[in-house]
Amino acid sequence: MSKSYYCDYNATTPIAEEVFHAMEPYLKGCFGNPSSLHHLGRGPAKAIREARTQLAALLGASDDKEIIFTSCGSESNSTAVFSALAAYPDRKRIITSSVEHSSIRKLFRHLAKKGYEVFEIGVSAQGFLLMDELKRALNDETAIVSLMMANNETGVLFPVDEIGALVKAAGAFFHVDAVQAVGKHKLNVKNSTVDFLSVSAHKLYGPKGVGALYVKSGVPYQSFMIGGGQERGRRAGTENVAGIIGLGAASSLALRDLDQEIARLRKLRQLFENTVCDQNRGVTINGDINRRIPTTSNLRFSGIDGEAFMMALDQRGVCASSGSACLSGSPEPSHVLKAMGLTDEEANASLRFSFGRFVTEEDVLAVAAIVRETLQYFRSFENGGVPQTEGRIVT
Amino acid sequence: MSKSYYCDYNATTPIAEEVFHAMEPYLKGCFGNPSSLHHLGRGPAKAIREARTQLAALLGASDDKEIIFTSCGSESNSTAVFSALAAYPDRKRIITSSVEHSSIRKLFRHLAKKGYEVFEIGVSAQGFLLMDELKRALNDETAIVSLMMANNETGVLFPVDEIGALVKAAGAFFHVDAVQAVGKHKLNVKNSTVDFLSVSAHKLYGPKGVGALYVKSGVPYQSFMIGGGQERGRRAGTENVAGIIGLGAASSLALRDLDQEIARLRKLRQLFENTVCDQNRGVTINGDINRRIPTTSNLRFSGIDGEAFMMALDQRGVCASSGSACLSGSPEPSHVLKAMGLTDEEANASLRFSFGRFVTEEDVLAVAAIVRETLQYFRSFENGGVPQTEGRIVT
Repeated sequence: MSKSYYCDYNATTPIAEEVFHAMEPYLKGCFGNPSSLHHLGRGPAKAIREARTQLAALLGASDDKEIIFTSCGSESNSTAVFSALAAYPDRKRIITSSVEHSSIRKLFRHLAKKGYEVFEIGVSAQGFLLMDELKRALNDETAIVSLMMANNETGVLFPVDEIGALVKAAGAFFHVDAVQAVGKHKLNVKNSTVDFLSVSAHKLYGPKGVGALYVKSGVPYQSFMIGGGQERGRRAGTENVAGIIGLGAASSLALRDLDQEIARLRKLRQLFENTVCDQNRGVTINGDINRRIPTTSNLRFSGIDGEAFMMALDQRGVCASSGSACLSGSPEPSHVLKAMGLTDEEANASLRFSFGRFVTEEDVLAVAAIVRETLQYFRSFENGGVPQTEGRIVT
Repeated sequence: MSKSYYCDYNATTPIAEEVFHAMEPYLKGCFGNPSSLHHLGRGPAKAIREARTQLAALLGASDDKEIIFTSCGSESNSTAVFSALAAYPDRKRIITSSVEHSSIRKLFRHLAKKGYEVFEIGVSAQGFLLMDELKRALNDETAIVSLMMANNETGVLFPVDEIGALVKAAGAFFHVDAVQAVGKHKLNVKNSTVDFLSVSAHKLYGPKGVGALYVKSGVPYQSFMIGGGQERGRRAGTENVAGIIGLGAASSLALRDLDQEIARLRKLRQLFENTVCDQNRGVTINGDINRRIPTTSNLRFSGIDGEAFMMALDQRGVCASSGSACLSGSPEPSHVLKAMGLTDEEANASLRFSFGRFVTEEDVLAVAAIVRETLQYFRSFENGGVPQTEGRIVT
């Protein structure tokens, strides 16, 4: 295969070189158990403290103690929800949206079977939360509202501050799944109404297998795993030392480059979308183009089988995605795009391109050219298999 | 500091070079999300399948599908217990021992508060399970029996086959916390009555932050985290790819060297114990010396403050442990040694030395010499601070 173009940064990111270098000593000589009292334990324990400070800075948390390291975003999400439910044993209403990641979506559907009254708030055709629906659903029996900050498929940003004000007025807990937003969008949890916020390292150039949960000081927390006193007694299990240090280093890197990366990626994405939409028939952008994280471009290629198109692009070296990686292999059309009102066919004709740190303008133009070439090939079979190109009707 | 002697392999192990090399590509170029359908996802997905086969072989499992990768031994333990409780909603008796790791001990005490009838079976003065107590506790209301295979503090092995026969006669589930046994003791889960078995990678020269749970085919399983379809729908969350591959490589290495390492470590430990016990007054071995994993030597230094002794050894380059790493910093004397009938003072006078792959005969003799020298220093302050050495009464 010739050059490979990775356009699936929302699925996962490569580990940044700086992150790998930060992790490497803890995969080699600095192997002590951070709970050990001897000298080999102290280095890792100190490095974990530093990582906690680094992530707290990225999130704009007021206190390092608000950070709990976990094994992944899904664990963070589950822990936040169960903490809220434990704190409000009598409140049986729980609210989310119709476009959440499966770690929340399936969890809430599971809780519906356990007797909770679950609301999935809808979204507009642009994928933006229907605030009026949320207002109507919220009441003083609501235990928790769990919503994404940025959608993994479309990149659409929900208005966290505005939502938070409503949630707090109802006295409910507010959990934000920020897995797709951290490192791509400015955060300041200190001045927010967010009680819980989920992070995953591998979405921001850190390793897989480590995440974090921000828990605002004073918010009740229920440990998911019971056992050793790690994480100040809030998460048992020997720490994923190298992983945590990787998340810390990735956080510092993200914070350092945040403004310029946001600007750079926004420009790159615009170039990509303009090129693809201008050069081809029937390509539309899914999602609110003005309120998105800068990494994500979800495109609908009218009349195309998205998964076949994705595989054809893959053979030409372009890695894109037909929906969330966590749902891939599923024959169902994207629930996110369906919630936005797309038909099954339209949803299946959509592909997500997501860009990041190592993508250049050249790459984006090369990808746009491969998309065009592949699309022309696919379109040549339209009209009953009779080759047809560029508006010229071949009869 | 001069040469460092690591004698705390039960707390954690360094990552073997072969393991690091297996992991490295997945921390660099092979970074795809195993759930992604494009070519960058397929490599990691395949490597995870191989790791599953490697661990299954080490455990003697009959089917790779019986392995579920987790984030640590504590998660494996919790998952096993909650799976059994969910399968037997009407059985309210749960049984463990008085010498378990805190991830089971605290979990069971938590469950006691939730209305479960918890039995903590006692142990002999040698730390061996009191089988008669177990027989009396078991009845047809027992949901699960959870016991360690090898104790983390003393290394004492419980008779898993004999226990399993009793557990099965009562129709209960049998969970074995084998975190300290895997890679140090021969396993054959296929021909056992074990339903669940917990593994932690960092105890066998793999990385921290990854573990596994063996679940025998046909045994009901309840997912701890709900969400994406990873691990055949049994554990949501993007896989810790490098970590899992590290666990796989560590498993292969352990299986390859198992017999010779057991023999080698047994010999080294005997040399260590003979040297230390023969050269010093008042050193006794805690735990059943005939039924232990070969890594572990738990020694009681009569009249000594174990933690101070441990810190003094640390300053001389010897890393040992006063109890479990997961409980370090706790002022409580070891619950394991207390359960064996030691007084608080005796328990506090005990230190665990645990050996492994990179320890040589030379190291063991050097450590014994440092122990002797440090012990003489400590003993010199006995008798009211008046120097006293080697049986000579200084008046």
